[in-house]
This record gives sequence, structure tokens and C-alpha cells, in this order.
Amino acid sequence: MAPNTLVIGAQRSGKSRKAEEIVSSAGGELVYLATATAGDAEMAERIATHRARRGGDWRTVEEPLDLPGILDREALPGRAVLVDCLTLWLSNLFGAERDIVHETDRLVAALQRTACPVVLVSNEVGAGIIPMNALARRYADAAGILNQRVAAACDRVILMAAGIALPIKPSPFPEPA
Amino acid sequence: MAPNTLVIGAQRSGKSRKAEEIVSSAGGELVYLATATAGDAEMAERIATHRARRGGDWRTVEEPLDLPGILDREALPGRAVLVDCLTLWLSNLFGAERDIVHETDRLVAALQRTACPVVLVSNEVGAGIIPMNALARRYADAAGILNQRVAAACDRVILMAAGIALPIKPSPFPEPA
Amino acid sequence: MAPNTLVIGAQRSGKSRKAEEIVSSAGGELVYLATATAGDAEMAERIATHRARRGGDWRTVEEPLDLPGILDREALPGRAVLVDCLTLWLSNLFGAERDIVHETDRLVAALQRTACPVVLVSNEVGAGIIPMNALARRYADAAGILNQRVAAACDRVILMAAGIALPIKPSPFPEPA
Repeated sequence: MAPNTLVIGAQRSGKSRKAEEIVSSAGGELVYLATATAGDAEMAERIATHRARRGGDWRTVEEPLDLPGILDREALPGRAVLVDCLTLWLSNLFGAERDIVHETDRLVAALQRTACPVVLVSNEVGAGIIPMNALARRYADAAGILNQRVAAACDRVILMAAGIALPIKPSPFPEPA
Repeated sequence: MAPNTLVIGAQRSGKSRKAEEIVSSAGGELVYLATATAGDAEMAERIATHRARRGGDWRTVEEPLDLPGILDREALPGRAVLVDCLTLWLSNLFGAERDIVHETDRLVAALQRTACPVVLVSNEVGAGIIPMNALARRYADAAGILNQRVAAACDRVILMAAGIALPIKPSPFPEPA
Repeated sequence: MAPNTLVIGAQRSGKSRKAEEIVSSAGGELVYLATATAGDAEMAERIATHRARRGGDWRTVEEPLDLPGILDREALPGRAVLVDCLTLWLSNLFGAERDIVHETDRLVAALQRTACPVVLVSNEVGAGIIPMNALARRYADAAGILNQRVAAACDRVILMAAGIALPIKPSPFPEPA
């Protein structure tokens, strides 16, 4: 297993930019694995912005649902892969009524056999007022569990706040007494 | 006063699991002080999941409202107490139209006379879009103030992110210049 | 440019109190630059509470929109300025349909020519469930970008959690391997 990294943080906290830096510095063929599809104008604009920032060195692969499968096919020696992002993948799974626990298991398994560095971006969605509708609550639950499981499966975890990267795994803190 | 700990973080960030570890390692008789009551099917399921994970070594006490009083009666020598969780207790206080400031004062006072380690779990609820309805805004305010006051009354505070524990009190950071 | 500081965190995480401490300890004439206006009873009460806590040593200036301009006029030698807060300023800009990118550019430029220490308070609003309405989503995006840009323009950034200050810039962490 190559060293994998999870970058988490709030919306617009600088996650994608940081992930791009890590993947670029890993070198090799750069693969941008987008879980977004340009389904609406707003999303299409976001995708275009990200693409412009990354420049021409990246090959983009779009896969809204089968992220574990595409990781198996794309995370090959001599490459570095950016997965952007897990929370959108989760939304797509909810939309397609997939089995979330099973898909999370599959992703964790795929991460354990990657043959190149993989950097995954994910949103923190559970630090606001707990939503009143049951679907949003189930989504926030699933996103929190997904983040925990992927963090456990990654060598490095970086928490973003206002564009600043806080490495939290491996622990930068001395052990509490 | 025995050493007390606050574990805060987003929904599904691994707070309860971490709190269980701390309480279990403190040893003695393990008391699970639940502020939830199995009022609806979803909550009943969550309580059952937590109970299954903790196993049979814990004695469970349910108290939706009088958390300060039950702490006085349960935080006795030779025990370790887990309070799960403060934000739900606050919801219950709002529902029962109790005086939030007074109850927060009572809780802080009770924490200052505990006779065994107490670990309290609480949600971060104020890092999302500020809610438009006034009640949710008052709740988020009260939760933030409750977290601050309990953090000030505890020896240790742990911030959870994606299942990873960041000890933030006592400060792990060098003093800023 | 005098050393400037951004204090970010969730609603009621202790940001204003921390910012007041920093500004007070900087000394000189203390200026409280409020972006709030007492437009409704709830906000009027908040402003009064903050004012009572700060005591009589502060001069208060209210400016809902032209924060860059007022910084140029107020951040003068021999003073220390507290800006409370950026997210409310952003709300005011949205309400007045100003060009957010342009105003953010102007603020960053003003921060680069301050002649006394300035401490800015801002909310984290992007760590909850992503709002369904497009305006709230645009607001959360703009707030995240504003926080990133101001953080990049400040010498120090402090993240608040439950009243506890975590200095995150300059980095308190050892470099990850």
C-alpha cells in the first residue's frame, strides 16, 4: 500500500488546493478522480475553476458512484491520484440508493491495496445545528462515519481551517499525561 | 475534585468511543449516564448500538433533565462516569423550558465536587450556517456557552475530528510569541 | 504593516473575548470596530452585552459596509483595533448587493497597510450540512474564501474551540515527514 492522505475541513477551507499540492509533489502521472458530474450549471462552473487551477498536467476521470472500482483501476505504480471529494460521492450513493455501509467497506478495502499515493478530500458536515429532516441527519451520520473510517485507513490526515493545514495524523501532539 | 474531561467534536466524529476508552481505562465501576431517552425509534436504535459496543461492564442511568443532581449522586469514589451527551441534555432543557443559565451554573458547580473521574461528551453545533429560525439560533448560542463553561471547569479537553483525538487542554502548543 | 491577527471559530466559541484580550494587551487607544448595527432587538442586546464586557476603555465605531475604508482611517499608530466581525460584514455586503470579490480584495489591501495591530473576528460557517438554498451556499462559499484570504494576510491565526485558543499560524506543528 502506498501512503494515502485524507484532507478534511469545512466548505471552502482550502482542501482541494492543499490536496493538489500534495499530489503534485508526489510526482508521476497526475490523475484527478472527480466524483462530481457536471449535472448543473453551478457544479459545472466549480469543476471548470478547479480544472483551470490544476493546469494541463492532470488527467481527469469522472466517476460518481464506483469509486472503489476506479481506485483499483487508476491507483497504479508511477502515478499520484486525487479523489475530490468523498462527501459528494456519498451524496451520489444516497441518490442512487446504494448500501452505504457496503460501499464504505469497499472503499476502505480499495485504499488498502493502492499502488500509488492517493489523496482524498472530504467535507466536515457535522459541526452545525443538527438538521431537522431525517435524510439530512442520516447523511451527516454517514459522512461522519465515512470520514472516520477513511481517516483510520490513511497514513496521514490533514485538517484544514481558513486555508491553513493542520496535520493531525500522525499525531503532532505530545501524549497527554 | 477528580480529574474531569470534556470530549467535543462534530456529529459522528468518534466522541462517544473516545470517551468510553477514557472512562474504561480509569477503571472502577463504570457508569453510563445517558441524557437520551428512547423517545423515538431512531434514538432507541442509537442507544442500543452504543450499549452493544460498551458491553456488559457498564451500569446505565438515564436522566434527561437533572444532570447536576444525578452527577452528585453517581460520581462517587471508586467509579468512573461517562455523560453522553451535553447537547442532548440542553435540548431536553429547552423542551422543558428550564432556565438554561441556572442549569449551566448547577452543572459547573456539580463538576467541581465530583469524587471520581467524569468524562462528558458534547457536540460542536455552531460551525455551520447560522440558522434562520430564532429558536435554533438561541440553542446554538446556549450550546456554545455550555461547551465553553464546561471546558473551563474540566482539567482536560479533547477535540475529535474524523475519529482522531486532539488534546487541546492542557495546551499542547507552545505559547505564541 | 503592524502585526495583525485573525480569530476564527464556531458561533459562541469565545472568539470575541479572546480578540478583546489580544487587543487590550497590545495597549494604546482601543478601538472597537463593529460591523453590526443595532437593527433588531436581538442584535442590539448582543452589542450591549459585548460593550458591557469590554468596559469603558474602548471607543466604538460602527461601520456595516466600508470596512476597508474605515480600517484605513482608524488603524493608526498608537492604537489597537478589534474588528467584530467579518461574517456579519459579509452578510451586510450580500444584503447591499456589493461585489464580494472586489470588497475582499480591498480588505486584504487595507490589512497590508495598517499602522497598528488589528485583530479580526470571523465565524466558521462551512462545517455543517451544506444548505439547500443557493444564497446560503453562495454565502458559505464567500465566507470560506474570505477567511482564507484574511488568514493569508495576517501574521497570526487563532482557532477557537469551546473557549480554548489554538494558535494555528505561525504553525505550532512540526513539519510532517
